[in-house]
Amino acid sequence: MEILNNIAADLTAMREKKPLVHNITNYVVMNETANAILCLGALPIMSHAAEEVEEMVGIASALVLNIGTLSPDWIDAMELAGKRANAMGIPVVLDPVGAGATKLRTESCKRLLGNVRISIVRGNAGEAAALVGIASEVRGVESISVAESVEDTARRLAATYKCVAAVTGETDVVCDDTRLARISNGHPMLGKVVGTGCMATAVIGSFAAVERDVFTAAVGGLVAFGIAGEIAAKVSGNRPGTFHTELYNALYAITPEDIRSRGRVKITNG
Amino acid sequence: MEILNNIAADLTAMREKKPLVHNITNYVVMNETANAILCLGALPIMSHAAEEVEEMVGIASALVLNIGTLSPDWIDAMELAGKRANAMGIPVVLDPVGAGATKLRTESCKRLLGNVRISIVRGNAGEAAALVGIASEVRGVESISVAESVEDTARRLAATYKCVAAVTGETDVVCDDTRLARISNGHPMLGKVVGTGCMATAVIGSFAAVERDVFTAAVGGLVAFGIAGEIAAKVSGNRPGTFHTELYNALYAITPEDIRSRGRVKITNG
Amino acid sequence: MEILNNIAADLTAMREKKPLVHNITNYVVMNETANAILCLGALPIMSHAAEEVEEMVGIASALVLNIGTLSPDWIDAMELAGKRANAMGIPVVLDPVGAGATKLRTESCKRLLGNVRISIVRGNAGEAAALVGIASEVRGVESISVAESVEDTARRLAATYKCVAAVTGETDVVCDDTRLARISNGHPMLGKVVGTGCMATAVIGSFAAVERDVFTAAVGGLVAFGIAGEIAAKVSGNRPGTFHTELYNALYAITPEDIRSRGRVKITNG
Repeated sequence: MEILNNIAADLTAMREKKPLVHNITNYVVMNETANAILCLGALPIMSHAAEEVEEMVGIASALVLNIGTLSPDWIDAMELAGKRANAMGIPVVLDPVGAGATKLRTESCKRLLGNVRISIVRGNAGEAAALVGIASEVRGVESISVAESVEDTARRLAATYKCVAAVTGETDVVCDDTRLARISNGHPMLGKVVGTGCMATAVIGSFAAVERDVFTAAVGGLVAFGIAGEIAAKVSGNRPGTFHTELYNALYAITPEDIRSRGRVKITNG
Repeated sequence: MEILNNIAADLTAMREKKPLVHNITNYVVMNETANAILCLGALPIMSHAAEEVEEMVGIASALVLNIGTLSPDWIDAMELAGKRANAMGIPVVLDPVGAGATKLRTESCKRLLGNVRISIVRGNAGEAAALVGIASEVRGVESISVAESVEDTARRLAATYKCVAAVTGETDVVCDDTRLARISNGHPMLGKVVGTGCMATAVIGSFAAVERDVFTAAVGGLVAFGIAGEIAAKVSGNRPGTFHTELYNALYAITPEDIRSRGRVKITNG
Repeated sequence: MEILNNIAADLTAMREKKPLVHNITNYVVMNETANAILCLGALPIMSHAAEEVEEMVGIASALVLNIGTLSPDWIDAMELAGKRANAMGIPVVLDPVGAGATKLRTESCKRLLGNVRISIVRGNAGEAAALVGIASEVRGVESISVAESVEDTARRLAATYKCVAAVTGETDVVCDDTRLARISNGHPMLGKVVGTGCMATAVIGSFAAVERDVFTAAVGGLVAFGIAGEIAAKVSGNRPGTFHTELYNALYAITPEDIRSRGRVKITNG
């Protein structure tokens, strides 16, 4: 399948080029997302001070913004960094953690989406719904149910913000204005470790650092992360602590051949 | 034993209801406490911005405040969140990390205890002593010795702040104005991993989210966490890194039957 | 070898005295550095509020400053803490994470080095070069190449700031104005886990808390941490998640005899 070949090639390119991925992310997952990026083959930078984010973005190949433990000064820094990324032409990935749970989260995301050209938004169905004003039930940072199908919400999100929408759940949906991918990689144990959604976003950012087509980068990140989850689950069984450790092992061990042979993607016209 | 049956039933209820537990906690253990809550069966939210904490508390079933890496703006947010929790009638659990080590810590705790109705305070003997003005020797965030017995300090803490006092050590003591429990679950390896005290507090918060009697919730949290420590120690031996991983596995695997058969609690009149 | 005997004795002293090591460090590695300190045998404190750092330093035996996710208010607190440490005569260890990557980082380090008497600076070659104005290539927080030899950069760093310079890489170099040590312990897997440089600095701080000769403390920290990396790599192979866990196990298990038999240090006149 062509997209899997491209993703496999991106993984090889990432490990050769070791691109810098700049993250302004939440306190809970800072270590976890940095290790996910490093294990896969890129180089993480974590930096949030308004005084340096623009300069730091200047040496990066992708920027990941994650509002998981947001405060107004961090959102300011995210906007500064995002504008610099836009000026440089590098991709910006947004993880709208908990959008819909509080006004601050929903409005901060909308502000970032309004003032920065975001390439990819990666969230769960509830977060995606909140960003496009669709009724949904969320519980904190978990999505319970959304009034329309995940595909429709993803399409609406992509159309509203002219971005790639990556909406994760049992089946992940990635779409832009012309294409829609359904990805069925992954494992339920990913729901038993805090921050795996944030790690998926960071992995998408790592692919975006080497892949010009941001749709392919989003699919690539979710395929690679999902396969890593499957590999980790096989060795760790029903043990979330062990699974967490094995997830890093799997991100480090995953090969381009794994992408080609285990990737499960269906692409249709959007 | 009746209280063990209640705790076992609370564990089942927690896994069915998956209550949201809102944490305003320290940077060092944010990931660890969130994973402890998730592994056991509840859902963690981490959020600290004054601009959103009241709204976030509004969807939670319990609030955990932990001053481990406090700064004045975080204490302000804790107070806002605590008052909202009081208005809603959900329990507030306080972990006074390092009370007694600096004036800021002792006074911030007293301010929270004065302005917010705290249901449960979980600390070591030195922290408890600092909050009631008893002489003690602390070393940073470790308790060395206290001028009176742990039971007396716990009783004094409970009486002073009209709360449940949960004072942990070799034997944990939990008391309110009429009951006192001695819990002898746990394992010395818990002292070899950073943040296990904070994790115990978070687990107490998870029980408080489903158990109306906060005394039972405090005992339940310490029994469940202590048993998890025992299970983890059995597989990991003298290896703190492995023990840390196994602690999550054990929190995930622990059953109501484990609570009933392995819980070691003695209750007397306060 | 005399220095290895001294380091072995320091390890024993650390485990007996359990000195407090105060860290003002970055969000990414706070948990990791605290656990490294605790596993080895000292007691970590993490505290950053300007309102309490001086008081907290007052009970510590060493201070570790790490600018990994710096912001101006944290640098202010580092300076306050550093001056108090100077007044008390306890050692201050600086980790200039990412110096050279942004002006804020380079200048913040120079400010700290100007206003606080720093005992030991532990960084990679690129960071060291940035602090003494030598041309180098850095990528974010990674050092790629430096215009002069690591030994020359280390000597220049030590001379410029009248400190012990500990410059880590394939071979670690530690020097003051009269001595230079080359340490060849360590393992490439240390480069596959985020924050192992920061952990090495924290371990140096733990040695500095019990060893008056700061040159020996710096060598001791790198020898002990390097040996722990070797032990961890032997059991974990090519798996960075497992290696991360085993690193804590190894720091906990390492013996004075391991230091004497496995330490690989060559000392020459500076």
